[in-house]
Amino acid sequence: MSKLKQGAALAKSAARILAALPTGAKNDALRQIAAALDESRGEILTANEKDVAAAKENGMSAAMLDRLTLTNPRIDDMGAAIEKLISLDDPVGTYLSKKTMPSGLTIGQVRVPLGVVGMIYESRPNVTVDAATLCLKSGNGAVLRSGKEAFLTSSALVAIMRRALENTSIPPDAIYLVEDTSRETATEMMSLRESIDVLIPRGGAGLIRSVVGNAKVPVIETGVGVCHIYVTADANLQMAADILENAKCQRPSVCNAAECLLVDAAVAPQFLQLVLPRLQKHNVQLRADDTALAILGNAAIPATEDDWGHEFLDYTLAIRVVDGADSAMEHIARYGSGHSECIVTESYQKAQIFLQKVDAAAVYVNASTRFTDGGMFGLGAEIGISTQKMHARGPMGLEVLTSTKFVVYGNGQIRE
Amino acid sequence: MSKLKQGAALAKSAARILAALPTGAKNDALRQIAAALDESRGEILTANEKDVAAAKENGMSAAMLDRLTLTNPRIDDMGAAIEKLISLDDPVGTYLSKKTMPSGLTIGQVRVPLGVVGMIYESRPNVTVDAATLCLKSGNGAVLRSGKEAFLTSSALVAIMRRALENTSIPPDAIYLVEDTSRETATEMMSLRESIDVLIPRGGAGLIRSVVGNAKVPVIETGVGVCHIYVTADANLQMAADILENAKCQRPSVCNAAECLLVDAAVAPQFLQLVLPRLQKHNVQLRADDTALAILGNAAIPATEDDWGHEFLDYTLAIRVVDGADSAMEHIARYGSGHSECIVTESYQKAQIFLQKVDAAAVYVNASTRFTDGGMFGLGAEIGISTQKMHARGPMGLEVLTSTKFVVYGNGQIRE
Repeated sequence: MSKLKQGAALAKSAARILAALPTGAKNDALRQIAAALDESRGEILTANEKDVAAAKENGMSAAMLDRLTLTNPRIDDMGAAIEKLISLDDPVGTYLSKKTMPSGLTIGQVRVPLGVVGMIYESRPNVTVDAATLCLKSGNGAVLRSGKEAFLTSSALVAIMRRALENTSIPPDAIYLVEDTSRETATEMMSLRESIDVLIPRGGAGLIRSVVGNAKVPVIETGVGVCHIYVTADANLQMAADILENAKCQRPSVCNAAECLLVDAAVAPQFLQLVLPRLQKHNVQLRADDTALAILGNAAIPATEDDWGHEFLDYTLAIRVVDGADSAMEHIARYGSGHSECIVTESYQKAQIFLQKVDAAAVYVNASTRFTDGGMFGLGAEIGISTQKMHARGPMGLEVLTSTKFVVYGNGQIRE
Repeated sequence: MSKLKQGAALAKSAARILAALPTGAKNDALRQIAAALDESRGEILTANEKDVAAAKENGMSAAMLDRLTLTNPRIDDMGAAIEKLISLDDPVGTYLSKKTMPSGLTIGQVRVPLGVVGMIYESRPNVTVDAATLCLKSGNGAVLRSGKEAFLTSSALVAIMRRALENTSIPPDAIYLVEDTSRETATEMMSLRESIDVLIPRGGAGLIRSVVGNAKVPVIETGVGVCHIYVTADANLQMAADILENAKCQRPSVCNAAECLLVDAAVAPQFLQLVLPRLQKHNVQLRADDTALAILGNAAIPATEDDWGHEFLDYTLAIRVVDGADSAMEHIARYGSGHSECIVTESYQKAQIFLQKVDAAAVYVNASTRFTDGGMFGLGAEIGISTQKMHARGPMGLEVLTSTKFVVYGNGQIRE
């Protein structure tokens, strides 16, 4: 048996014990983890410095280096996130329904943990702690596969968390870090149906595609965001400019940032002139279709087919002029990723049609797509943003890490 | 583009229109389908006779022939099922929550159709009508892949349903029957992520395994049932005998029938003697472990390792004597399929522990596992019984054919 298979099987056994624990016992264990991380700052920072040094040597970009680097304030943030998690309601044990049937059977549908959750992620070490603690709170074991660049940091964090569990009701085996970062091990993990109940990949489009394409374990697809802002002829153009600037520029590297502007032909000259200086202030590169190009002149370059549906994650914006709501919705249906889509309009009817017809996890009227996240949607914690339709869609909190079961109370009923 | 790809893409376009239809329009279309099936009995029965004749020639078993054969009363049943479906609440458009956040955004979470549902099934032609009409009611397109044996019947049924839709608000393309029954086409269907949103296989263990192993489209696993009846030392043995006889013999060919008896050693002699004549009455073959064999003598044959976790779907029962609840639950964790599991006991504590610890879609105290179905659980209609944990678990009604989306009402909000 491979190390991974063994580790995952141990996580599965541990998860059976964990599944039956009351909320208080799980919260106590989370407190131990928070305390241990606080006391082990030296160990964490030393490991992280090695990861960062290696990444610099390998020429990692400044943005990626920033994601990889841990500091004392960032370790504080991990602790604060655990405190917040402790304060959240435990979804396990909640009854969705309970009723007595004509047969006399009383049937309840109750939330239960999924079992073991597999996370495959890249170079953000805080995901290691986030994912593990969210799994524990919801009664699940966690099999974590960290990106190569963050592996030493992730190893230190998992070692500290497992040590912290030793004096709690949760078996330390409930958290398992996959012991190497090879492609072969990742592929093996994706096929471990007997011990992993669901896989959640967190990272770039390439990672997600690879997991969706190769996994035999059920996957919750997350994160790829090709979000559109559609400005109608009757929009408040000042509001539209505020929303577009915010959605594009406030934090372009995240999945709920806007990648493409669609604007009705009737207001395209006026709106593009209005918003241009605001985008230029952030040095946004504009890739425009022919009509928009005629308006923007040297301020833009021609868009290619590749630019539609492209997740730039950068100060780049595709721009297309459309002939009304139907063309805009057709563009979104074809090129959108089903993440977050926005219409800016003063028309009641257009707003209603857009909300109903656009098929995405979050559909907005007159607000920036940057709001799509667990905190802003009131979930308290977030394990990712699902862009698929099964099981979960949009920002995912603790409930997503649960399934249900039917419990049936009889007194000798048999079926006629 | 292959015929299948084209048909599925048309179903996807039709599903976009269907998704926005009000319940009344969908119910009207269902009424047209029921009327058309009623008026086309000759066409249906002629096609079915050809399927049945070919199946006889190929030596199909009597039980399978019975499933394949349509009669006038069975066509009546199809119509009655559609009438029932019309009377059910439409899940689409239901709000799971709607709240105003501190940002001033009002965020609602509303049920929406999944899109296009792919069904892969075997030789029961009624599944063609059941699946198609459940999909339409919940606003989804349906791509149906019928088993070879029922293909002519399924073709006739789909042709009639599509004709019936011609004068309704639902585009006929919303229902598409895969035009051949080759393995290649099935494989192609399982990878059509761009036009099929979820696959639901209905059939034997081999079919389910093949779909789960090959599909790139998300799958809802259904139906394999290795159900256990566990009789504790303090059970009411008369009640236990009633439950076991019912769970094993009332309809052994279905997934919620019992396949294995676990009985505490302390009452094994007494219980086995009590239940033996009742099982013998139905000619149940008993496959017993050594301890049970010593009690049953010639009435049983030795069980092999293969018999544990085996879905017999027949008058066959595996029997194991256990040392209390922990051994029983360990056996179930190892060999059960996560469908339906039952404890017969008068002990409050054992009942509670069993309900909490056993990981299955339905967990019973003192009732036959035969109750696990949509009708008995009050769902009104059933598209299958999920044995997986993601998205749906246990009997699945209309809600399972929906996803959700967040609709966000703003008035110019941007993120700070």
